[in-house]
Amino acid sequence: MKLNTISKNDLKLLRGLATKKQRRLTGLFLVQGEKNVLELLESSLSVEKLYVSAGFQNQHQAVIEQFAYTVVSEEDLTKASSITSNNAAIAIVKQPNYNLDNVSGLVIALDDVNDPGNLGTIMRLADWYGVKHILLSEKTADVFNPKTISATMGAFTRIQTHKLNLESYLKETSQPIYGAFLEGESVHSCQFKSDGIIVMGNESHGISSNIKSLINHQITIPSYGHSESLNVAMATGIILDNYRRCV
Amino acid sequence: MKLNTISKNDLKLLRGLATKKQRRLTGLFLVQGEKNVLELLESSLSVEKLYVSAGFQNQHQAVIEQFAYTVVSEEDLTKASSITSNNAAIAIVKQPNYNLDNVSGLVIALDDVNDPGNLGTIMRLADWYGVKHILLSEKTADVFNPKTISATMGAFTRIQTHKLNLESYLKETSQPIYGAFLEGESVHSCQFKSDGIIVMGNESHGISSNIKSLINHQITIPSYGHSESLNVAMATGIILDNYRRCV
Repeated sequence: MKLNTISKNDLKLLRGLATKKQRRLTGLFLVQGEKNVLELLESSLSVEKLYVSAGFQNQHQAVIEQFAYTVVSEEDLTKASSITSNNAAIAIVKQPNYNLDNVSGLVIALDDVNDPGNLGTIMRLADWYGVKHILLSEKTADVFNPKTISATMGAFTRIQTHKLNLESYLKETSQPIYGAFLEGESVHSCQFKSDGIIVMGNESHGISSNIKSLINHQITIPSYGHSESLNVAMATGIILDNYRRCV
Repeated sequence: MKLNTISKNDLKLLRGLATKKQRRLTGLFLVQGEKNVLELLESSLSVEKLYVSAGFQNQHQAVIEQFAYTVVSEEDLTKASSITSNNAAIAIVKQPNYNLDNVSGLVIALDDVNDPGNLGTIMRLADWYGVKHILLSEKTADVFNPKTISATMGAFTRIQTHKLNLESYLKETSQPIYGAFLEGESVHSCQFKSDGIIVMGNESHGISSNIKSLINHQITIPSYGHSESLNVAMATGIILDNYRRCV
């Protein structure tokens, strides 16, 4: 079987897309690894380039035959990858732009969630709990960071994220706004309404004070032991479960 | 201020304790970083050696003065650490042995959970939800792995873990046994009894077949969207929340 090598220019682009600056300049991002690339190829996202290993090609012939792709050595793939142990596939993809007018239903809003892994995990959770839209404050982690995409486990193809001035948006909305705090009404007794916005705060500082003043319902996950806090992604999962249970 | 250096022998021991083999041979483990070392010093665990930075010493004088400790440079601490960016403190601690006869209340059992980070996160969750005991199958990750201890955020001082032949234990117990599956009764409608055991399975393969046959209640977290699965630590958190809500 004839293997191509990734050209020097393409390798430079692939490596560059691990940085926020290059993603901003090019409007592109990377999708890496078997699971995420398969989900990508079944989505409506626009694939610009696709590199696959011979193993991936053999296993997924039917899926990839509708795309232009290049078969390269696993060594080349590993060199180009910005996630660990990817020997399956890597794609360069156009960043989608979602229309804010479509935002509806149960919505998550992230107020400066810093960690790309947490953002990706929250997107995966949103996908599990049927949330279509996530609002991101300007300082929230980049949704196109390779660590975010990796943690979504394919959910990046289904969740629409909107980076915006969160304070202005929340000032204008007519939806009820719920916010997670260490002290608030227990999610076990909270009467959620449909079509609300759930605000989750920064990993260290929680929800910022100007967002806090816009929140209608302060909610909390009751503790039965000694831990001081839960990770923000974990808290999001537990709140969504409580929400879906009653709405 | 006079700073000591960590001796070559001690540095060798500290680095060795990042490996399972040395932990088994010595019966010791490492506790690293400000939060976890502070929780350690307020617990009843047996501290064999304690190294702190001058900054940590100044900030926590009252806590550490009852211990024999050595003040070392941040550079030495970083060299000795097996977690990232620890410039606060590192302790060598005797591995505790917990009595299986004390196991009571709501109990978590892990059937070959592989990832040390997942194990640590589950210990942190257990601590939040007032679970005192976790049963670990023999192939479950090592509770004394530095990544596990780090992820517990101090909960390793309060949660009693028991490594054992899980199948034999579950055969003998009279407690109701719940197991998490992708198909089972919804946790939203499940009537939990107090003093049950909740079994969580391996990251890739779920609960093994010989454990499955011992489970009285197959439970599941209902999905409202498209993700195929939830991470095992996330699923544990959501199940514990549902359990505490009704028991």
